[in-house]
Amino acid sequence: MLQLPTYEDVAAAARRLQGHAHRTPVLRSSTADARLKAELFFKCENLQRMGAFKFRGAFNALSKFDAAQRRGGVITFSSGNHAQAIALSARLLGIPAVIVMPLDAPQAKVEATRGYGAEVILYDRYTQDREALTAGLAQDRGMTLIPPYDHPDVIAGQGTAARELLEEAGGLDVLLVPLGGGGLLSGCALAARALAPDCKVYGVEPEAGDDGRQSLRKGEIVHISTPQTLADGAQTQHLGRYTFEVIRRDVEDIVTASDAQLVEAMRFFAERMKLVVEPTGCLAFAAACHAGLPLQGKRVGVILSGGNVDLARYAQLIGAQP
Amino acid sequence: MLQLPTYEDVAAAARRLQGHAHRTPVLRSSTADARLKAELFFKCENLQRMGAFKFRGAFNALSKFDAAQRRGGVITFSSGNHAQAIALSARLLGIPAVIVMPLDAPQAKVEATRGYGAEVILYDRYTQDREALTAGLAQDRGMTLIPPYDHPDVIAGQGTAARELLEEAGGLDVLLVPLGGGGLLSGCALAARALAPDCKVYGVEPEAGDDGRQSLRKGEIVHISTPQTLADGAQTQHLGRYTFEVIRRDVEDIVTASDAQLVEAMRFFAERMKLVVEPTGCLAFAAACHAGLPLQGKRVGVILSGGNVDLARYAQLIGAQP
Repeated sequence: MLQLPTYEDVAAAARRLQGHAHRTPVLRSSTADARLKAELFFKCENLQRMGAFKFRGAFNALSKFDAAQRRGGVITFSSGNHAQAIALSARLLGIPAVIVMPLDAPQAKVEATRGYGAEVILYDRYTQDREALTAGLAQDRGMTLIPPYDHPDVIAGQGTAARELLEEAGGLDVLLVPLGGGGLLSGCALAARALAPDCKVYGVEPEAGDDGRQSLRKGEIVHISTPQTLADGAQTQHLGRYTFEVIRRDVEDIVTASDAQLVEAMRFFAERMKLVVEPTGCLAFAAACHAGLPLQGKRVGVILSGGNVDLARYAQLIGAQP
Repeated sequence: MLQLPTYEDVAAAARRLQGHAHRTPVLRSSTADARLKAELFFKCENLQRMGAFKFRGAFNALSKFDAAQRRGGVITFSSGNHAQAIALSARLLGIPAVIVMPLDAPQAKVEATRGYGAEVILYDRYTQDREALTAGLAQDRGMTLIPPYDHPDVIAGQGTAARELLEEAGGLDVLLVPLGGGGLLSGCALAARALAPDCKVYGVEPEAGDDGRQSLRKGEIVHISTPQTLADGAQTQHLGRYTFEVIRRDVEDIVTASDAQLVEAMRFFAERMKLVVEPTGCLAFAAACHAGLPLQGKRVGVILSGGNVDLARYAQLIGAQP
């Protein structure tokens, strides 16, 4: 029987993060409100340290290491933002870090990870099993594995984003959260269930990789092959054991957004809200605009999960004619 | 003798703006701090309503209209952000608005101004005198002219940006402010003189149009022809009578930034801080990086004045190889 994280773990994570993570702003847009006939509250995790919510879970997990774990170091696998989050948290806490990253990860993310002082090991995400590879390295080197989402301390840390949003916005009727492996979604669902029991929480995943939705429908974790989508932070092949259990208990439903909808949202954020948001970070707002959810007259939280995107690629995406 | 605005006017403007203007976030960047060996506090007026600080001065000025002025309406001339600021403020307060805009203003700004319900009249900024044109229209139509910078209520409103920054960041040693006609700079200088008397305030104007610096050196307002610069919000030909008097009394010095330095700063904001900042809004940070000011070890306020830039143009600027 899995010991699922609770809201108390989220509250404890918030205390650990105090003074280390940014309390990111909650921004409004009268244009967005008018378009959706709702009140939208955008939680800007693109303005979080290292540019994504992932810092929350990583720092929380590493803060709980004992002396032996600190000496041995941390290892993880990640398509990007979790890599930087572990690397930065490890540097701040004086812990050695090894990051296993896909060969085709955005160059900006690889460089930022190395810039934080971590050792980077590259693998081919289409042919190699990153989880087995990393577990082997962890054992050989005596390092503690902190996976990108399926870990109670990571989930609890990510939940602090929704906790802050609910504290600042007051009650919400709906909360929309990007969904890859489910760390952010399950953590936010824990916070919402405790702080706003009537709030309906939705996960949003890329149309090309709707394993989460399939898993909810089937009642078990569905595995898919790596989806081809602009949302590189949500190219996961399956939910985790912890995240799936929390999601199926506390999440209303899972919806999807297409790449074209992500680009439209990215342009909206740049043009109207002056924010750089990475494709994965656009999932929640794209769904608010296009997934047909009943939002009219509602108070809606929208989590922008991150802003780490290669600048040349970003310019290309927002500069193209819509 | 001119009756210059005072800090009390800034404080009164802050009360009028409460609940109407956003209290914009003050963001930090450990990358910027490390690069400049200083503590930087970025006041994000690109996240202000309509995308620029100009909303503050416009709303403050229009809030003071009497019943006859409200009926008659407001008229102004502007290269962009002041136009939208007056148009939006007028709509919020139920006042008719006419905006005289240059033919070559960014299309996004013209459209946004019309979108707020204002009447737009276009003129050629290289051949026509916008001030004379607007004054004539004001008289013919019985409208009140609120110029973009040289007006005590506008200056006082703009000063609320520095007031909020100083309240949030605590004491500052240096404050860097973009400079066009001087409304923002003079208002911020009033706030700094009252709240942080030892803080040195610098104006930053485009290298191609350093009329402000020339004016300080000469001790009188120097007129130049419209400068060719990416910083379209600072293409002014001269300081105002009010702004010049405040600036020469309360501002330490005026420095400049080149277009290439503005583009570099724009890329930094997008890549590292996830913010869309227009070229004019990059002046202060560009000067922090390149003007040779003694910032090391100091607490430095940097005002990002706005984020209104055509998306295609923006993509071109940040996407080009540096």
